[in-house]
Amino acid sequence: MLVGKVKAAKKDSVALSALGTDEKNAALEKMAEALDARRAEVLEANAKDVASAKGLPAAMVKRLEVNDAKIDGMIESIRSVVGLADPVGETLSVMELDEGLVLYKVSCPIGVIGVIFESRPDVVPQIMSLCLKSGNAVVFKGGSEAANSNRVLFDILSSAAISAGVPKGSFVLMESRQDVGAILALDEYIDLLIPRGSNEFVKHIQDNTRIPVLGHASGICHVYVDKSVDLDMAVKVAADSKMQYPAVCNALETLLVHKDVAKEFLPKINRAFLDGGVEVRADAESKKHMEGAVDVSESDWDEEYGDLIVAVKTVGSLEEAVDFINEHGSNHTDAILTADRAAMSYFVDHVDSADVMVNASTRFSDGFRYGKGAEVGISTNKIHSRGPVGMEGLMIYKYVLLGEGQTVGEYSGPNAKRYTHREIGGKLEL
Amino acid sequence: MLVGKVKAAKKDSVALSALGTDEKNAALEKMAEALDARRAEVLEANAKDVASAKGLPAAMVKRLEVNDAKIDGMIESIRSVVGLADPVGETLSVMELDEGLVLYKVSCPIGVIGVIFESRPDVVPQIMSLCLKSGNAVVFKGGSEAANSNRVLFDILSSAAISAGVPKGSFVLMESRQDVGAILALDEYIDLLIPRGSNEFVKHIQDNTRIPVLGHASGICHVYVDKSVDLDMAVKVAADSKMQYPAVCNALETLLVHKDVAKEFLPKINRAFLDGGVEVRADAESKKHMEGAVDVSESDWDEEYGDLIVAVKTVGSLEEAVDFINEHGSNHTDAILTADRAAMSYFVDHVDSADVMVNASTRFSDGFRYGKGAEVGISTNKIHSRGPVGMEGLMIYKYVLLGEGQTVGEYSGPNAKRYTHREIGGKLEL
Repeated sequence: MLVGKVKAAKKDSVALSALGTDEKNAALEKMAEALDARRAEVLEANAKDVASAKGLPAAMVKRLEVNDAKIDGMIESIRSVVGLADPVGETLSVMELDEGLVLYKVSCPIGVIGVIFESRPDVVPQIMSLCLKSGNAVVFKGGSEAANSNRVLFDILSSAAISAGVPKGSFVLMESRQDVGAILALDEYIDLLIPRGSNEFVKHIQDNTRIPVLGHASGICHVYVDKSVDLDMAVKVAADSKMQYPAVCNALETLLVHKDVAKEFLPKINRAFLDGGVEVRADAESKKHMEGAVDVSESDWDEEYGDLIVAVKTVGSLEEAVDFINEHGSNHTDAILTADRAAMSYFVDHVDSADVMVNASTRFSDGFRYGKGAEVGISTNKIHSRGPVGMEGLMIYKYVLLGEGQTVGEYSGPNAKRYTHREIGGKLEL
Repeated sequence: MLVGKVKAAKKDSVALSALGTDEKNAALEKMAEALDARRAEVLEANAKDVASAKGLPAAMVKRLEVNDAKIDGMIESIRSVVGLADPVGETLSVMELDEGLVLYKVSCPIGVIGVIFESRPDVVPQIMSLCLKSGNAVVFKGGSEAANSNRVLFDILSSAAISAGVPKGSFVLMESRQDVGAILALDEYIDLLIPRGSNEFVKHIQDNTRIPVLGHASGICHVYVDKSVDLDMAVKVAADSKMQYPAVCNALETLLVHKDVAKEFLPKINRAFLDGGVEVRADAESKKHMEGAVDVSESDWDEEYGDLIVAVKTVGSLEEAVDFINEHGSNHTDAILTADRAAMSYFVDHVDSADVMVNASTRFSDGFRYGKGAEVGISTNKIHSRGPVGMEGLMIYKYVLLGEGQTVGEYSGPNAKRYTHREIGGKLEL
């Protein structure tokens, strides 16, 4: 049954990809209106989820809870997608192969996206509207704690979209854990998976499917404090990287300090860490300058704490710091704090991470802060999309060659016509 | 031992990614010179391969054979890569997040590329020079028939490059089938695999690795002849698509004809096919107009002949043709022949293929013809790279955020500073 729906999504994804901007925006507006009109149903369904969630931690229940203000937020998030530029059908480049034979590279949707996320019901309208605007069909599943809320949101939004002319198969809601297991085998129909959740969960998905996965299993981020640096700035940025929101993937885990400034810098940052309740795990050299620090162990260098804990190491050189980051990091986000242009340049060129920060907090690596309007996820992949990914990560392109009856035979052999191969301007218009 | 080399390639890929254009071009020039100076060694090694290849088909032996003219071609291909623009370090976009806080999206190499190809030794210099220029380390294997030639070419070219300052681990030659099996498990070190060979071989690779694979397993290409069409043009283009080089992936396999022109068009194209020695397998409707045609079977629609055979079907409408292509095609290359703008537009929007041809032969979908300078492969993937892929397919990007000590804390809470989020011009210069 799920397989049938996923097959239908694949088939309908073609008509969806060809919808015009106005049609998609009109459907989004209908979705916003329907959600506004049918608030009571959402609140009722959500009350059931909350009632069943009694035993869960308070923070989780809070994320699960939907009220009128949260519904306002959902409606606003749908309308904000109306305002985003349509990424489909953009002419990316035009090359004349010969007179009257012109090659257009044109953006188009990937096809069918699989999205798996945790409990928050407000992700449902966000995913459905981003996939619709980008012309992709979506097969998705939210946390089981939010099953009632997700189901009602899905019904309201998909029926509104379909009534506005969006192909019926465009949205598929998965409801069980078994469904998630089942879609991992559907690489013939699903073109990209975006799992959002714990490291173990993402790793599990990556290990059990042939579908390309966009995301990151872990975020082991470093800040390296170079020898020529404004120490007050360094304290401020390192503290922000660790403490501003320690639970997230772009928070600092391991602090590296050049030996020439260790004695001066470490007591200062230690004070900030102590004030913020951060547990410091330091190597022998760093520990000398950090009151109350405990011994770091080798396994700390490869750990994502996601908590108020930091590992600290003193290094002998910029090069040592870079090698350490490339060995122990997760290619996510790493920062250098320095006043030295040559050190910035070396660090930027040699750190193999999606996001390299120079004199700025690691916490900036985020779709919203990067000005993307909407964040699909943060990727540590080396192909397709890397770092914070907006709607552009849901796009690919096709080549369209417009000719006048040319054959390859004419361009081969002794009297071959010559290709002109000129990059020209313009836009595909048919 | 292979694993050690692949790990070293991963490590050295960082220094390789940071090499300047001049250094890379100087190394390429050294490679060209070394090959010129050491021709005798190549010819000697190749003679051994040819001697062992006695039992193989003549065409294969010919592809295997190296002579002075072929070495000239190899040298020329290395020098042509010197002339290609350096794809590394290009600033792709610049966004001001706030005054003094600027985000650069900068192109960089993917890292380590695995390439597996068949017998021709001339692919060795091509792969090594493209990977070097794009700043990627490469782990590769050629056909075992060419083992002696490949080994000598590898030794000459890698020692020349290393003597010019290219990191030692940049090139790894695999020598056995076991090596290929082994690298499929090395997803921690190899970022992208490019297999070039038979459909079964590519499929085998795709099915047995977690490394992303760039390529295509099959090329089942269609030409659809619409009802309003210049019939002579249609005959010419359809014949070229089928017959100009039937063994390759972008050759026509299934010809679709609108019923309104079947009676007039099919006898004409049949004549061209008969003259060219093409076996025609037609559905009942088409067969009426095609003398000598045999009955097509259902399985023909999903077959890549790679030979002088064509399947033919009469369809009732443009929409039926498009549905048929999306169902039976391989998302590679499909063409419409028509004079009708609306039909072109529908076909281009709804055919889910990497390359969509309008009034041009399917045979044009090729890196050289597309003006890419060098072709890495043809991809039917839906992410990263699609269609003929040049050096751009070996690239990804990183984000570099240049700040002056900003923290995320300053942009949060009640007195939050505002992001400006302005796309600005410029280039990352450190």
